Amino acid sequence: MDLNKISSPSFLKNLNKKELEQLAKEIRSFLIEKCSVTGGHIGPNLGVVELTIMLHKMFDSPKDKFLWDVGHQAYVHKILTGRASQFDTLRQFKGLCGFPKLVESEHDEWETGHSSTSLSAAMGMAAARDIKKEKNYVVPIIGDGALTGGMALEALNHIGHEKTNMIVILNDNEMSIAPNVGALHSVLGRLRTAKEYSKAKEELESLINKVPVLGGKLAATAERVKDSLKYLVVSGVFFEELGFKYLGPIDGHDFEALETTLQYAKKVKGPVLVHVITKKGKGYKPAEDDTIGNWHGTGPYKMETGAFVKSVTKGPAWSSLIAETVRKISHEDERVVTITPAMPVGSKLQGIQQDFPNRFFDVGIAEQHAATMAAGLATQKMKPFLAIYSTFLQRAYDQVLHDIARPNLNVFIGIDRAGLVGADGETHQGVFDIAFLRHIPNMTIMMPKDENEGQHMVKTAIEYDGGPIALRYPRGNGIGVPMDDELKVLPIGSWEVLREGKDASILTFGTTIPMAMEAAAALALQGVEVEVVNARFIKPMDVDMLHRILTNNKPILTIEEAILQGGFGSGVLEFAHDHGYQHALIDRMGIPDHFIEHGNVDQLLKEIHMTAEDTVTRIHTLLQHKQQVGLKLQ
Amino acid sequence: MDLNKISSPSFLKNLNKKELEQLAKEIRSFLIEKCSVTGGHIGPNLGVVELTIMLHKMFDSPKDKFLWDVGHQAYVHKILTGRASQFDTLRQFKGLCGFPKLVESEHDEWETGHSSTSLSAAMGMAAARDIKKEKNYVVPIIGDGALTGGMALEALNHIGHEKTNMIVILNDNEMSIAPNVGALHSVLGRLRTAKEYSKAKEELESLINKVPVLGGKLAATAERVKDSLKYLVVSGVFFEELGFKYLGPIDGHDFEALETTLQYAKKVKGPVLVHVITKKGKGYKPAEDDTIGNWHGTGPYKMETGAFVKSVTKGPAWSSLIAETVRKISHEDERVVTITPAMPVGSKLQGIQQDFPNRFFDVGIAEQHAATMAAGLATQKMKPFLAIYSTFLQRAYDQVLHDIARPNLNVFIGIDRAGLVGADGETHQGVFDIAFLRHIPNMTIMMPKDENEGQHMVKTAIEYDGGPIALRYPRGNGIGVPMDDELKVLPIGSWEVLREGKDASILTFGTTIPMAMEAAAALALQGVEVEVVNARFIKPMDVDMLHRILTNNKPILTIEEAILQGGFGSGVLEFAHDHGYQHALIDRMGIPDHFIEHGNVDQLLKEIHMTAEDTVTRIHTLLQHKQQVGLKLQ
Repeated sequence: MDLNKISSPSFLKNLNKKELEQLAKEIRSFLIEKCSVTGGHIGPNLGVVELTIMLHKMFDSPKDKFLWDVGHQAYVHKILTGRASQFDTLRQFKGLCGFPKLVESEHDEWETGHSSTSLSAAMGMAAARDIKKEKNYVVPIIGDGALTGGMALEALNHIGHEKTNMIVILNDNEMSIAPNVGALHSVLGRLRTAKEYSKAKEELESLINKVPVLGGKLAATAERVKDSLKYLVVSGVFFEELGFKYLGPIDGHDFEALETTLQYAKKVKGPVLVHVITKKGKGYKPAEDDTIGNWHGTGPYKMETGAFVKSVTKGPAWSSLIAETVRKISHEDERVVTITPAMPVGSKLQGIQQDFPNRFFDVGIAEQHAATMAAGLATQKMKPFLAIYSTFLQRAYDQVLHDIARPNLNVFIGIDRAGLVGADGETHQGVFDIAFLRHIPNMTIMMPKDENEGQHMVKTAIEYDGGPIALRYPRGNGIGVPMDDELKVLPIGSWEVLREGKDASILTFGTTIPMAMEAAAALALQGVEVEVVNARFIKPMDVDMLHRILTNNKPILTIEEAILQGGFGSGVLEFAHDHGYQHALIDRMGIPDHFIEHGNVDQLLKEIHMTAEDTVTRIHTLLQHKQQVGLKLQ
Repeated sequence: MDLNKISSPSFLKNLNKKELEQLAKEIRSFLIEKCSVTGGHIGPNLGVVELTIMLHKMFDSPKDKFLWDVGHQAYVHKILTGRASQFDTLRQFKGLCGFPKLVESEHDEWETGHSSTSLSAAMGMAAARDIKKEKNYVVPIIGDGALTGGMALEALNHIGHEKTNMIVILNDNEMSIAPNVGALHSVLGRLRTAKEYSKAKEELESLINKVPVLGGKLAATAERVKDSLKYLVVSGVFFEELGFKYLGPIDGHDFEALETTLQYAKKVKGPVLVHVITKKGKGYKPAEDDTIGNWHGTGPYKMETGAFVKSVTKGPAWSSLIAETVRKISHEDERVVTITPAMPVGSKLQGIQQDFPNRFFDVGIAEQHAATMAAGLATQKMKPFLAIYSTFLQRAYDQVLHDIARPNLNVFIGIDRAGLVGADGETHQGVFDIAFLRHIPNMTIMMPKDENEGQHMVKTAIEYDGGPIALRYPRGNGIGVPMDDELKVLPIGSWEVLREGKDASILTFGTTIPMAMEAAAALALQGVEVEVVNARFIKPMDVDMLHRILTNNKPILTIEEAILQGGFGSGVLEFAHDHGYQHALIDRMGIPDHFIEHGNVDQLLKEIHMTAEDTVTRIHTLLQHKQQVGLKLQ
């Protein structure tokens, strides 16, 4: 069938098994083809083709509510709810979002991006339903990886307690972004192989039932233990202990098994958990064969071979550069311990893991635990390196504040993917970390201008003994500068002048430096000499340099690829006003007060007026303003 | 014995049972007496007297590491580690902290205040020990309430997976701050009554062992089921599933049971969980009889009767005022649903709970889940009221940003105990919420000047349909103003002038308004006319009023009982510079860039130079500065 013609999932009701299988096949081909051009989360989506089809056949969306946890596995859902024709624009500027979006469709009931939120939101939706005395199903679909996130466990605990009607689909593909870790993973593993126990349980029951024949004391015992039989492993005791009816495990690619089990689940009173085993990448060999997570989310690839289309880059990937520098130092410094919340692949930490299996911890999707575990290590004089994406560090805000910064522990936080990330969009932009870290006492925050400075900052962070120190680095690749052989320690709070200029100062750091340099060059041609400062320490700032610039009464433009409220530029304003430079001319460029959608980073920057041309214009405006004030001051 | 003479816990090694019991008795008397004067967390501490004594007898602190989760139950630990003589200063300015503090003692290995951090930190300490090939015990002590916090569950999952040597003491008193909720609570309840199952299990084992006599097929079955026996409920299957050896439950007031079990626990390889049943308030009748949590933490009380010493207050408690207004509106507006993470008592929500059992959810210590559940409710057009202390909202930062503000859902966040909280100190000061909320797009933040405006703000928040709206209110009581009968809706982003004045403007809100008014009165006597503005909307600000003040070139002093970096004052700076008032004279008063210790709020404010006198001085400085610039401008 023509997938582009689907406008609603209602057509599924009339399809027979053969037609469903044909549809699954077509959807797979469609996804493999489309994602080969746009890139995307192909692996997770190939794994849930049958599951998504059957969910839409068995339930009535949007009356019944689907909540796709994390959300990158909602492509099939998007196809079945009338969005196939938009897949050429997937994850592109103004195009189809890679995650569920309320504005895209009434079938997207819950927006996601970050992990482990679906159960809590489902509890809210179910509570609303029960208060309003409405009837509908609430169906969160959560992966085995997302289940280990603390908030998902909090939700299980609450839902089981309230005995709320809800059908939780546990999509167990034995790996999330990377192979899963954690005791819960073993629980699921045991469930997967529980068939023989299942038989043993039946036989035991039959045994117990024969006991009365033996008479006397044993009969009484048998009676007492009957109650306990439900705790045998086959019943999914972990979930049953938490108040859930456990169903499964079932093959998530078997339409009949899915149908039978969901039919039964719909009749259960109270919360039920349906354990569905799926295969990530199902139906596309290169993705099926992946064991480390390379096919979780990809860029474009050659459909026939599965070879990734390599983009032309100048420097090394930032994640690799930082990780490999940590690895190098770890060989000399035995105090270094690396912690990642489920991102050994994303943050390119496999080299460290390989060299130092005892000093490397992948704790699963558990940012809070990761941060406080780092604090615990630091109390024992170790040097924890906590590698975490900017957007996911948001989950550990309280732990950074309360457990790391308050007792001023030496934790090195590697903030990966700081700044705009592009295609992943709104939920993943790393633009808040400066604003949420800068106000935390004892914090040091830095960002390098290039990969050579980046490696020195790793050294600086590991040598630093003054408390927590965060090193931000962007998504993507470095600019291809020569690398020093010898690592060195940068003075904390030191900036450097990259270009001299008497008329105005641009203070910026990281990815926006090239733009500032370009603007300064353009301005020079117009006879305006602008200083460009690499403000590599966002906190503490370079006080001497600030005094020098402010004393000279130079207009200042701050530029940051980060939210403006409370950001670096605000720090410069605060400094000026705290130190009596009340008449300082300061303008701030950065991310305005709204969320930034998905798209190519250059497009996004243009959209929010952060280009070299904008920089030139704003410097001119500042200088005009200076002239006006200057006239008054004369 | 004289508790004041204890300098180290080593003396415990030689005490016999009778002496231990005598010591426990003396510690109880000491605590009941001292806390009757200073106030404090008397209930939790009376519950862990025997447990703490036995822990210090069986382990060697500080070589062995104790981590007191939450930490308010560490008084006995403080007595046994040489701090009895400081109890007269408990929770007072420059006095003994109510929580473990690294700087107080080498025996305080882990600082706490917020819940559920101990297991993660213990994992860090244990990892450090194993990397360094050292030998010591790591012993986190965690309550049944704290165990439901997501990060504690994340940690259990990781520790069980790593099979790390660790002795977790589960201090189960069946309530934390309020009676506990959640499915895990039921799990523990079943364990508590598991004794008869325990016997049944033994008998079943004996039964199985007799089976071979029967021969044939049943014998084979018996062999197979033997493996499964460990899953019978008596073995603490929930924890065993997560990879922990479960011991207990044992009576936490029985020295012998504690000694035997801890002895055994020390020999176990891998993580072990010792389930200890204690009685909160043990040994002091008024506290023992408490079923709702009034004796969790108290102010001063009359030792003989347990009657609380009432302080003289002018207005109603802020928590009550806000909660009772929500209760009132809930009677008319069926959309209102109240959610609290374990604070029905603290946030005075019992009235709502009583009137609306179906529209009230105490989710346990689970701030993340609470926030996202509120988001889920909002997607269904309900009006969730999320009541949460400022300091604990830190735990839900990502949920507020990603799940509430990003999709712009109408969630009413009641930020209880905003500002300095006093005796609970560093870990509990509510001074970061403005800085961590203000940079989140779509947020509205407000704080009332008095309880009458407070009740109108509740109405405003519930009627508001523009996205998330936060209402901050302080710890303690209102100032005793007359209350309007009719509730009204305040215009979003509107400020009000409380006092006119042509020479300068003070912009402030909430608790610091009386101080500003006092300063303005003092300045008037000196001939300086200062305007005082109730800047009740922290975001969005009153743009018209700001333009008026800035256009008139009036010097501005902002005052906030909140961290300065990225706070309200920074918002005013940002506004001025974004709108071309580059030469505006703006000074900001607030919490400086360090953590604020415990103490009486007035003392703390004096310490950080936030008094009426300081305000007067800073206005004079601003005016002098204006004169200098003015001279230049002429």
